[in-house]
Amino acid sequence: MRIYADNAATTKMSRTAIDTMIPYMEEGYGNPSSLYVLGQQAKEALDEARATIAAVINADPSEILFTSGGSEADNQAILSGAALGAKKGKKHIISTKFEHHAVLHTLNKLEKEGYEITLLDVHENGLVDPEELKEAIREDTALVTIMFANNEIGTIQPIRELGAICREKGVLFHTDAVQAVGHIPVDVKADNIDMLSSSAHKYHGPKGVGFLYFKKGVRLQNLIEGGAQEKGRRAGTENVPGIMAMAAALKEASDNLEKNRAHLTAARDRLIAGLSEIPHSALNGDREKRLPGNVNFCFEGIEGESLLLLLDDKGISASSGSACTSGSLDPSHVLLAIGRVHDVAHGSLRLSLGEDITDEEVDYLIQSTKDVVEYLRSFSPVWRDLEAGKTPHIL
Amino acid sequence: MRIYADNAATTKMSRTAIDTMIPYMEEGYGNPSSLYVLGQQAKEALDEARATIAAVINADPSEILFTSGGSEADNQAILSGAALGAKKGKKHIISTKFEHHAVLHTLNKLEKEGYEITLLDVHENGLVDPEELKEAIREDTALVTIMFANNEIGTIQPIRELGAICREKGVLFHTDAVQAVGHIPVDVKADNIDMLSSSAHKYHGPKGVGFLYFKKGVRLQNLIEGGAQEKGRRAGTENVPGIMAMAAALKEASDNLEKNRAHLTAARDRLIAGLSEIPHSALNGDREKRLPGNVNFCFEGIEGESLLLLLDDKGISASSGSACTSGSLDPSHVLLAIGRVHDVAHGSLRLSLGEDITDEEVDYLIQSTKDVVEYLRSFSPVWRDLEAGKTPHIL
Repeated sequence: MRIYADNAATTKMSRTAIDTMIPYMEEGYGNPSSLYVLGQQAKEALDEARATIAAVINADPSEILFTSGGSEADNQAILSGAALGAKKGKKHIISTKFEHHAVLHTLNKLEKEGYEITLLDVHENGLVDPEELKEAIREDTALVTIMFANNEIGTIQPIRELGAICREKGVLFHTDAVQAVGHIPVDVKADNIDMLSSSAHKYHGPKGVGFLYFKKGVRLQNLIEGGAQEKGRRAGTENVPGIMAMAAALKEASDNLEKNRAHLTAARDRLIAGLSEIPHSALNGDREKRLPGNVNFCFEGIEGESLLLLLDDKGISASSGSACTSGSLDPSHVLLAIGRVHDVAHGSLRLSLGEDITDEEVDYLIQSTKDVVEYLRSFSPVWRDLEAGKTPHIL
Repeated sequence: MRIYADNAATTKMSRTAIDTMIPYMEEGYGNPSSLYVLGQQAKEALDEARATIAAVINADPSEILFTSGGSEADNQAILSGAALGAKKGKKHIISTKFEHHAVLHTLNKLEKEGYEITLLDVHENGLVDPEELKEAIREDTALVTIMFANNEIGTIQPIRELGAICREKGVLFHTDAVQAVGHIPVDVKADNIDMLSSSAHKYHGPKGVGFLYFKKGVRLQNLIEGGAQEKGRRAGTENVPGIMAMAAALKEASDNLEKNRAHLTAARDRLIAGLSEIPHSALNGDREKRLPGNVNFCFEGIEGESLLLLLDDKGISASSGSACTSGSLDPSHVLLAIGRVHDVAHGSLRLSLGEDITDEEVDYLIQSTKDVVEYLRSFSPVWRDLEAGKTPHIL
C-alpha cells in the first residue's frame, strides 16, 4: 500500500488543474501585456482567473495579486504593512510564536531595521487568546499578522474575532492562509481580513504560484520591481498557465469543500483515535479546532527522522513537521511554542491526509505507526530509561 | 498566414519542455524538502536541472539559484550587489540608460535609499562604449549592471570586455541576460560575469521560472525570506515542474544554438533588407551587433499601436517594444536612449523571429508591413506635412 500523507507539504495536482494548465502551455502562450489577439486572450484568461479566485474568498477581483507562491505573498504583505505603518510613525508589529518562517524571518529582518516585534503565545492548544491580542495592540502598532491555520499542528485560529479586534483598533490585519484556503471556509469580508496569503500547490494546484489578497485601499509595496504587470505591484511576465491552473484548482476545492471536510474530519478522527492507543503519545494542537486532514503526534523515546524513514519503507509519505525546515536538526519551533520539551518535540509525526483517503488506508497508517514506534522504542536507550523509571515520563 | 513574431516578449513552449514538465505535474509532485522517496526524487531532479543549466553557461551547479523569473533575479542580484557594496561604504552603481525596467526601477529604489546611480550612454547604435565604463568606475562603485542584449532593439553589448574592466577594477558585475541566454553563446567564466539573470519563457521554457547565476563568493541577500530552500537564499517550495522544463528547454536551445543562430540571422537580414525599402524608415540599434532574431524599425509619420493592430489583422503578432510597458503611452525609453525623437519613437515596430521562421513568412512580414505603413501614412496628417515639406523628414 502506498499512502501520500504529507498534503500539508504539497499536494498532487488535480486532473482538473492539469487539464486547465496544459492548453496554456501548448497554445495559449501569449504575453498578457501584448496588444495582439494571442496576448489579449491571455489577458482575458487572467481576468477570469482573478474573478474566480476573488469569488471563492469573497473579494473583489481588483484585490487579488498573483505571486510566485505563499512565501512571496507573506513577504510582500508584511513589508507593505510595515512600510505603511512607518509612514505614520508606527513601527510595532504583532504576530505569534509559531508562524511560518516566511513570516518570522521577514519579521526578523524588520526587527533589524528598527521595528519592534511582539510574538503572542499560542498556549498548549496552539491557539491565540484574543484577549492577549487586544492587550498587545498599542498606539504604534502598524500590523498584526497571524496565520489562519498552522502548517504543522493544524490549529485554526479564531481569525474572525482577531480580525474584528484589529479593525476596531484600526490596525492592519494580515493572515498567512496557505493551509486554510481551499480546505476550510475563508471569507475575507466576514473574517475582517485586510491581507491574506495563499499558495496553489497546497490545494492541488501547481507549484510556483500563489496570490495575495489585499483589501481596497491597502497600498502595497513592491517586492519585485520592473514591468507594469499587476498594475505595477508585481513585475515579471505573468505565469498564465500556473495562474489558470490555480484558479481551476481553487474552484474545485471550493466546490467540494464541505464534502471533503466531512470526509477528512472523519478520517482524521479515526486516525487520532487509533494513534492515541500508542502509550506515552500525545496529539499536538487543539483536538477540535484543527484542519480537517491534520494529525500531529509526539511519541516519547523515539526520533522523528527514523520514524519517517521506516514509514517510507512501508509506503507512507509523512513528515515530522514543516517541509521547509526538514533539513534542520533543531526541533520544530511550533512544537516548542506549544510547550513541548526538546526531547519530545524530536519525536513528532505529522500526517496530513488527502481527500481520497479511505478507512482501510487510515487503519494501515495506524497499524504501521504503532509497529514502527514499538520497533524504534525496542532499542531506544531513552525509552529504556523511561520504562525503567530512571527518567520520568512526560507524555 | 499566422506568424508569431514577438519571441522577445515570450515564446511558445517547446514540445521537449512540455513533455519534461507534465510528469512532474502528474506523478513527481513530491516536495524536494521531504525525506521520503517521493521528496528525494524531486530533490534529485532539481540537482539534475541545476547541473544542466550550470553546464550551459559554464558555471558550477552551486552557483545557480532558481527564481520565479528574470525580474526577480534582476531584483535580487542588484539588491545583493548594493548591500555588499554598502558594507564597504560603497554606494555608487553604474548601469545604462536602456536597461529593462526590472533593473531601472530597482535602481530608482536604491537611489531613494541613498545610492548614487550613473547611467551610461548607449549612443546611436545602442552600445556601451567600454572606455566610458572605465571612466565611470569610481573608488566607491559597488556594482555595474549592464544588460547582455537589449530586449527592444536587440543590441549585444561587449560583455566580455565590460566584465574584464569590472574585474580589473574589483567591481561586481551583473548582467541581465534574459534575451541572451539560449540565443547567443554565454560563458560566465570567459565573459567575466559575477551575476547573471535569466528567464525560461524567453527560450521556449515555461513562464514563472528563471534563474540567477552568482559566482562563488558572492553573498546574496534574500528577496523572499522564509524556508531553507535554495540553501536559505530563496524561500518557497521549489517549482519543480517549471524548473525541470526550464532545464530541458535551455539544453535544447543550447544544443541547437549555432544552427538556430545561423538560420535566424539569415532570416533577420532578409527582413531588414526588405523593410529598409520603406521610405523614411530606419533600423534601430547596431546593424551587426544584434540578436539573431531581432528586427526593430522606426517609420516616420505613423503611430505604433495602429501598426500593430493592423498587422494583427493580417495574422502577425508583433510589438512596438517591450511587452512589459505596452500599456504605457510614453515612447520607449530605449528608443529615446539611442536618440530617437518622441514622434519617431512612437512609430516603432519590433519583430522578433522564432527559430522555425521561413523565407516565405519573412516575405509576408515585409509585404504586410509595407502595406500597413503605406495605408496608415495615406491618412496621417503628420505624414502629409512631412511630404508637403512643412516639417522636415528626420529619417
